[in-house]
Amino acid sequence: MQSIESALQETALAIEQVLDQILTLEDAAEIQLFDAMRYAALGGGKRFRPFLTCQCAKLFGVDSSNALRAGAAIELIHCYSLVHDDLPAMDDDDLRRGKPTVHKKFDDATAILAGDALLTLAFEVMVAPATHEMASVRAELVKGLAKSSGGHGMVGGQMIDLAAETMALNIGGITRLQQLKTGAMIAFSCEAGAILGRASNEAREALRGYAHDLGLAFQIADDLLDVEGTLEETGKAVGKDEAAGKATFVSILGAERARAQANLLADQAVEHLAVFDETADQLRAAARFVVERKN
Amino acid sequence: MQSIESALQETALAIEQVLDQILTLEDAAEIQLFDAMRYAALGGGKRFRPFLTCQCAKLFGVDSSNALRAGAAIELIHCYSLVHDDLPAMDDDDLRRGKPTVHKKFDDATAILAGDALLTLAFEVMVAPATHEMASVRAELVKGLAKSSGGHGMVGGQMIDLAAETMALNIGGITRLQQLKTGAMIAFSCEAGAILGRASNEAREALRGYAHDLGLAFQIADDLLDVEGTLEETGKAVGKDEAAGKATFVSILGAERARAQANLLADQAVEHLAVFDETADQLRAAARFVVERKN
Repeated sequence: MQSIESALQETALAIEQVLDQILTLEDAAEIQLFDAMRYAALGGGKRFRPFLTCQCAKLFGVDSSNALRAGAAIELIHCYSLVHDDLPAMDDDDLRRGKPTVHKKFDDATAILAGDALLTLAFEVMVAPATHEMASVRAELVKGLAKSSGGHGMVGGQMIDLAAETMALNIGGITRLQQLKTGAMIAFSCEAGAILGRASNEAREALRGYAHDLGLAFQIADDLLDVEGTLEETGKAVGKDEAAGKATFVSILGAERARAQANLLADQAVEHLAVFDETADQLRAAARFVVERKN
Repeated sequence: MQSIESALQETALAIEQVLDQILTLEDAAEIQLFDAMRYAALGGGKRFRPFLTCQCAKLFGVDSSNALRAGAAIELIHCYSLVHDDLPAMDDDDLRRGKPTVHKKFDDATAILAGDALLTLAFEVMVAPATHEMASVRAELVKGLAKSSGGHGMVGGQMIDLAAETMALNIGGITRLQQLKTGAMIAFSCEAGAILGRASNEAREALRGYAHDLGLAFQIADDLLDVEGTLEETGKAVGKDEAAGKATFVSILGAERARAQANLLADQAVEHLAVFDETADQLRAAARFVVERKN
């Protein structure tokens, strides 16, 4: 089997190409907008969400060009959320993937507009015939993208995250926060593959279980990296949660128990994949990868 | 014929009801997000874009509940754009429709997230089966909504608008700015009615011409209001363009010629409707309304 690192890199390269084509740079008065959009979306990132979409789509024999389009739409949402999240009014971050954040490189107004335009472009990409020949499939994808990324999904999670700075969350509260903030989009990244493949209910249910456990494992690992990682490894500021006095899985469970919990969730995630043959091996590897990664 | 004011008010009430149903307020940690979304979207606004959608849809016998859903999605985009536009990093406005702007009432972070969530919700509403029974029609609506509101539409126009503070625009530049910033969404508001009604190419072309002239007339009237209106009438700060040193139709043409141009465009808009019978009378009245309105 291809290593997970090599498989991830392959998808990342393909997604970079798709995004490069989508994000045209035109010679117009608003050139700075497209410049900022390209800066935000190209040249970095693990492309982990598109990887999940592509691997899940492969289970059902979906054409990889279709999966890459859906994955690119999801990645555009992820990129916009980072741009807005980094704004001074939000997390106020200066570095992202080792480079100045969009509002540092350009300005706050451009960052707000570039985020809005990336968000909107995600839906334009998802609904285009190149994503799937059937309009009903594209409509289902648009619905899932909106639900997972909006007020009842990712944006809702970000709102709780901000509130968490002044509100003491228990472990249930943190779990809900993370299920909205990162879990919903990770779950949809998997579901998108199933939608494209018009998968059976049984297969969708299995992927739903996988994505749920994977998403939580991913977030606990993220919290651990914020405590144990370095700026060189992660390409972004670390130790921010503690400095902000935010409750995290690590602050409540302690690093050791948090790590044990992440490993347990990764094991559970793999178990959900029992209904699939070796085509799912990269998804199995991904579950281990998320808890062992260094950035 | 019903007066345009009364017809507008009827649509505004119906849209308010639809938005009130869509924007549920749940008792959760992220309640402030939904609170801010409702504050931004309910209780005000001419609902001029949904009015255009409903009136255009009526030309093709579309069920009014479908037209109202599409109109509500468009209005959500309009509302999000106002929330982000009012932010300190953008236009820095304290008042909107005579009330504190969202970031004044809540805070900047909540305003950014509420805008993001309203934007995303617009696509969720548009793609839902309640908007149209055919997935292909919904997909076409989603595509048009994304194109008209994104980087090559409204957001692109906002970017030029920001750049215009430091860049001298001539009349061609201002026309392009406004065609993107307000024209694209006004054009799509009309087109959405034609998409819902699966209208002929001839009818679509007529509505496209109408919307083009109406949109420009609308914007010139807006520029005139910024010069000649009062805070009491418009519910927002006036004289801002001149204070910011921004070129507008009025600063370049002068108030008198700008008014003449707006009236000419309104007449042209009406001429495009010649292919329609008296069902289009409210659209004809709307063309006059935009150049005569006081807010």
